[in-house]
Amino acid sequence: MTSNEELTAQRDRARQDYEALVARGLKLDLTRGKPSPDQLDLAQGLLELQGPLTAADGTDLRNYGGLHGLPELREIFSDALQVPVEQLLAAGNSSLELMHDAVVFALLSTLPGGERRWVEEPEIAFLCPVPGYDRHYGICERYGITMIPVPMTAEGPDMDVVERLVAENPAVKGIWCVPKYSNPDGVVYSDETVRRLAAMETAAPDFRIFWDNAYAVHHLAEEPAEIADVLALAAEHGHADRVFVFGSTSKITFAGAGVAFFGSSPANVTWWLSHTVKRSIGPDKINQLRHVRFLKDADGLREHMARHAAVIRPKFDVVDKILTAELGDTGLASWTRPAGGYFISLTVPEGCAREVVAKAKAAGIALTPAGATHPYGDEPADRTIRIAPTYPDPAELETAITGLATCVRLVALDKLLNA
Amino acid sequence: MTSNEELTAQRDRARQDYEALVARGLKLDLTRGKPSPDQLDLAQGLLELQGPLTAADGTDLRNYGGLHGLPELREIFSDALQVPVEQLLAAGNSSLELMHDAVVFALLSTLPGGERRWVEEPEIAFLCPVPGYDRHYGICERYGITMIPVPMTAEGPDMDVVERLVAENPAVKGIWCVPKYSNPDGVVYSDETVRRLAAMETAAPDFRIFWDNAYAVHHLAEEPAEIADVLALAAEHGHADRVFVFGSTSKITFAGAGVAFFGSSPANVTWWLSHTVKRSIGPDKINQLRHVRFLKDADGLREHMARHAAVIRPKFDVVDKILTAELGDTGLASWTRPAGGYFISLTVPEGCAREVVAKAKAAGIALTPAGATHPYGDEPADRTIRIAPTYPDPAELETAITGLATCVRLVALDKLLNA
Repeated sequence: MTSNEELTAQRDRARQDYEALVARGLKLDLTRGKPSPDQLDLAQGLLELQGPLTAADGTDLRNYGGLHGLPELREIFSDALQVPVEQLLAAGNSSLELMHDAVVFALLSTLPGGERRWVEEPEIAFLCPVPGYDRHYGICERYGITMIPVPMTAEGPDMDVVERLVAENPAVKGIWCVPKYSNPDGVVYSDETVRRLAAMETAAPDFRIFWDNAYAVHHLAEEPAEIADVLALAAEHGHADRVFVFGSTSKITFAGAGVAFFGSSPANVTWWLSHTVKRSIGPDKINQLRHVRFLKDADGLREHMARHAAVIRPKFDVVDKILTAELGDTGLASWTRPAGGYFISLTVPEGCAREVVAKAKAAGIALTPAGATHPYGDEPADRTIRIAPTYPDPAELETAITGLATCVRLVALDKLLNA
Repeated sequence: MTSNEELTAQRDRARQDYEALVARGLKLDLTRGKPSPDQLDLAQGLLELQGPLTAADGTDLRNYGGLHGLPELREIFSDALQVPVEQLLAAGNSSLELMHDAVVFALLSTLPGGERRWVEEPEIAFLCPVPGYDRHYGICERYGITMIPVPMTAEGPDMDVVERLVAENPAVKGIWCVPKYSNPDGVVYSDETVRRLAAMETAAPDFRIFWDNAYAVHHLAEEPAEIADVLALAAEHGHADRVFVFGSTSKITFAGAGVAFFGSSPANVTWWLSHTVKRSIGPDKINQLRHVRFLKDADGLREHMARHAAVIRPKFDVVDKILTAELGDTGLASWTRPAGGYFISLTVPEGCAREVVAKAKAAGIALTPAGATHPYGDEPADRTIRIAPTYPDPAELETAITGLATCVRLVALDKLLNA
């Protein structure tokens, strides 16, 4: 047990370090999972598209049509997203758009297996594994969907809780899942978690898993993580229409100018198209062609992602190195060492996260607001801080994480001393 | 008055001509308003985009962000669409998507001035000037919106009818308008029509004009048509939030890979963004930059559209020439000579349009289904045929229109003889 004097001395050192930090007048940003310019440079080959701008079947891609998206592009991503080509659609530049639209379409028209439109239900609720992705919550909040937090474990959402909630409450219509390298914890769902999600009985006949496979090919470790095939498992367990799969190239090519994917059962794809056929005469197939010519095939995609890993792995290493050096033996924090994805999750003592983020902000280090990883921006335990290490250059990152560690020491020690 | 024998002789000639036509085994398509490959070639310069991919303000356009769309692109289209830059948003590749989303957002959240969400109303109805655009009707049908046809006049929708319907029925929440070179009649709304639309009293407090300015810069005549500024007029008459303006580059650059626009009052734009901020982190700004670099400015846009007109004007002339030669002195049909836009509207004797389209189809000439220009695909008078002359090459077009005229002669004369 550390003595009170020892703690006070540590706190005073932290206070001095913090004052020095503020005096530096930094302006650093760790808020969002954005690719760095170096990563975007990797996709500059997208600009080299030349004519003829035709599909493999001869279609002139400059003109209207092709609602399903370019078959040769869907082919490239079919394996990575674990969706058969004929059930995979390629769309515009953002999977967030597709997730939003899936919710909107379900509100306004009855899903396969459903009894009525969601707008006709007295209440709609979604399960939100926490910590999770704030933009998922944003969609729920916009459309008045109740969010029910479910704790994450090292294997994915706590399935005992999930199974109980979906079985007892017919208002529970969906669950948000980032199954591989989850945002922000980097958790890879275990085969057993995926199986239970596919097999569980739900009170709602039109329950849907929103399977946001955002980091399907975004590996950092030598050995790429594999997850179970949720579409196949759901079909096997008699719930073929349970899963909506989403993916995109936002963190593969250009974050603002990529291609997104929707995959599901044949019945769900038909339902989806019954909306999109009224909404659009077809996606931007020229940009899809750009991606086909640039990535070439599934191997080309893998090689491209290895180049991304080479750029960002050192950044994840910097964060781990600095946190270990600054906080490793203090017992004041723990953090993840993800095998892929875009985030490191830093856990501080209960009741400290908000204060750490505020202190960092005052020192010119922008972090995602504490609580953002939880529905309604509210984490009762107030202990999760999401670090997005990809955007800053390594030197900036080192400075920012050192500063962040100072804030953690200051806030956590203050808390301990005032307890 | 033509004698019965004379009519019979004409019909028999038409029957012989039709048999000869069928024997040719044609395969021609006049169905949709698609740009021809020649027109698409005009935009090939879009592919020349090179780095640095930055906005005027230095933003890296390859990354996330920029929900409003690229300011320099909105600048280029602000005059043509008659929307101030700060009230004009640039989005993805299709204005149809934006029109769909406007309906969906209004169903799911209360509009400025509204009392409740449209899904909470017992009935929602839209006025549909006829003949009109089938994809507008498709959106209404998908979401259970009642469509009320309103006759078109040479000055736009019959405003006496419109004013009466919107004043007496609070279920009437919207009207579809293609104000310049309307689809399919090529009507340019008169200043008085626009003023009355802007000024009229509506029973619904959240009535909206869906102002689909699809052909804002698509002139065929020497003198470009000008329409009154509906946004300004609506504001002047105390209905600032009445109008949603839509536009796109679909028939300016690549039909499948262009850019779309939404413009409205500040309150409506805020409402719109309250949805899109949850839906997207930003549109494809690289494609927007492509359009900026290619079109350069409003003058560049005008020059580009003059090149389009040079390609398609001869096609409109061919249609008029053949129809005049084949049907001009028969009294069996009349047709439009539009000063812009994408269509020629052919009017045949009452009860003949379906049969003409069926006969043409049997002879290998595909036309938009008769009735498609009316809600629910149902034109009671059965007399409007939409001709889309832009896609085929002039020789094909000449063959197709000659064949179509043969079908008109056959069906109309048969009808006359059996009357």
